[in-house]
Amino acid sequence: MADIARLAGVAVSTVSRALAGSPLVNEKTRARVAELAASLNYSVNVGAQNLRLKQINTIAVIVPYDTATRQSLSDPFFLALIGSIADACTKRGFDMLLSRVDAEHLNDAGRPYTTGRALGIILIGQWHHHDQLNELALRRVPLVVWGAKLPQQLYCTVGSDNLAGGRLAVEHLLNQGAQHIAFLGDPSLPEIAQRYEGYVQAHRARGLSPTPALCRPVPFVSAAIEQDLDALLDSGEPLDAIFASSDLVAMTAISTLRRHGRRVPEDVAVIGYDDIALAVHYQPPLSTVRQSIDVAGEALVGALIAQLEGEGTLPVELPTELVLRQTA
Amino acid sequence: MADIARLAGVAVSTVSRALAGSPLVNEKTRARVAELAASLNYSVNVGAQNLRLKQINTIAVIVPYDTATRQSLSDPFFLALIGSIADACTKRGFDMLLSRVDAEHLNDAGRPYTTGRALGIILIGQWHHHDQLNELALRRVPLVVWGAKLPQQLYCTVGSDNLAGGRLAVEHLLNQGAQHIAFLGDPSLPEIAQRYEGYVQAHRARGLSPTPALCRPVPFVSAAIEQDLDALLDSGEPLDAIFASSDLVAMTAISTLRRHGRRVPEDVAVIGYDDIALAVHYQPPLSTVRQSIDVAGEALVGALIAQLEGEGTLPVELPTELVLRQTA
Repeated sequence: MADIARLAGVAVSTVSRALAGSPLVNEKTRARVAELAASLNYSVNVGAQNLRLKQINTIAVIVPYDTATRQSLSDPFFLALIGSIADACTKRGFDMLLSRVDAEHLNDAGRPYTTGRALGIILIGQWHHHDQLNELALRRVPLVVWGAKLPQQLYCTVGSDNLAGGRLAVEHLLNQGAQHIAFLGDPSLPEIAQRYEGYVQAHRARGLSPTPALCRPVPFVSAAIEQDLDALLDSGEPLDAIFASSDLVAMTAISTLRRHGRRVPEDVAVIGYDDIALAVHYQPPLSTVRQSIDVAGEALVGALIAQLEGEGTLPVELPTELVLRQTA
Repeated sequence: MADIARLAGVAVSTVSRALAGSPLVNEKTRARVAELAASLNYSVNVGAQNLRLKQINTIAVIVPYDTATRQSLSDPFFLALIGSIADACTKRGFDMLLSRVDAEHLNDAGRPYTTGRALGIILIGQWHHHDQLNELALRRVPLVVWGAKLPQQLYCTVGSDNLAGGRLAVEHLLNQGAQHIAFLGDPSLPEIAQRYEGYVQAHRARGLSPTPALCRPVPFVSAAIEQDLDALLDSGEPLDAIFASSDLVAMTAISTLRRHGRRVPEDVAVIGYDDIALAVHYQPPLSTVRQSIDVAGEALVGALIAQLEGEGTLPVELPTELVLRQTA
């Protein structure tokens, strides 16, 4: 408000009265203050007002990066999700601000909103900082997160039904007679933890428990996956199936298996996760758990708009589907 | 300037004097006008000033859409290019505004700049409207276009050396003994026209001319490509190689060839274009012309910043490279 007063050349109290619509302020000054306030994106209830006045027409999409691995924005699943969000924004007449934050400082994700550049935030992934996202929600930053539904969650998530996805994949592998199913993925990430939980549940439903040595908490980095799988294969631990936490992890696993002379699916069956565009073109065509990337953008944007309009924002879990091709 | 005068509550002539630094305007008013001008992104040389003052920290990336095909943003090459630009923006501390315009109205691409939301524009593709892009450049919209270097070009392009790429691919096919090489792609698009020109030049260098029936001006739509190739194969026209204008076109062609019982590369050799991430995982791994997607983002952002800093903006042609795998 001090900014507006300074720029309009009037007292702060005048700005306050003008914004409240007080008749003590003359019409010309009131209009001037209102326009300034709008141009500076100042408001009491920024989100809803912005939406109503269409002063801001932009949704921020934040893709965290991991400073340790310095990964570039090349993951086909994330890119496809960004494409889906861009399409949903275009359809509804919004622009999309794409930026990145350090995955260790997800609270920085609120900045495009607090600086008045975006109506609200869509964040891709919870990473390791559920707490920081709750904090953002407490600060009333309009926020929708692509990720897992978690206990004690104050923010809105849209994501896939990861638990069901993991269970479907592993039930199928067990039905096919697999007895030694490895899980490749890092359960310290919430979505991966739920896929892992599905893996465990599918075993338990048959009175089995997974072999601890077959749970391989690998990051999404090809070299690390190859190295880990090399070690597993060299160890002599029996292995007849793999449930991979993404399609790229599955493809890396398949190349590694080939290098070790193991045939897919004859010796080791493999199921991936995501159903990226590449999966169907892969040879052999990849069996995988499909996340509905095409509707995800609309679901994320829709949940954010609902939130801005003051509607309830319950977590959304999109259905997952097992797509059987030729690797399992 | 009228806007600033109205908001500051002073005469237009005062604003004009204040911006020119005239001593006739008192210091307080001058500061107020300067700050307003900046906050409204008004300036004679908006781009450079924005960059200097860091008032705007955003680069707009515009991906045109074709209203006829209503294509969604799912092309892996475009998505990878967007990822590369996002990484380059992050590295330099810029946000990226992603939006779409009707491919028939590329002049709308200037809007994020003219409305003060972005420092400048990166447009993905020239489509059919070289003229509209020249018009944007005449309006002094800071603009870099991913695409082909063309005659009478007033705007800056960054793109691949499409002519060399096409020539390299077709020279290789001719060296391998191919005599009936089809070209799949729509030469009404400037980049595709240059790839086609490379195809023609490679033939001419050997005193050959391509068979008109083998030039297939197909759009980037799988169903249309399949249908066109079905017709070509059914016609009995001799065919022993295909140069496809993108990797997805090549993959669609390979599926179609398989459906007709033609082996790749034994019966028909195929070379794609782009080297998307999928190409190396394809089976058989796809021979293709690599566009340097990883450096493209930096080249585009760098060219835009140079332009904003008043440096010359010559077209950039990134080198293309023939990557031989197993389809040719």
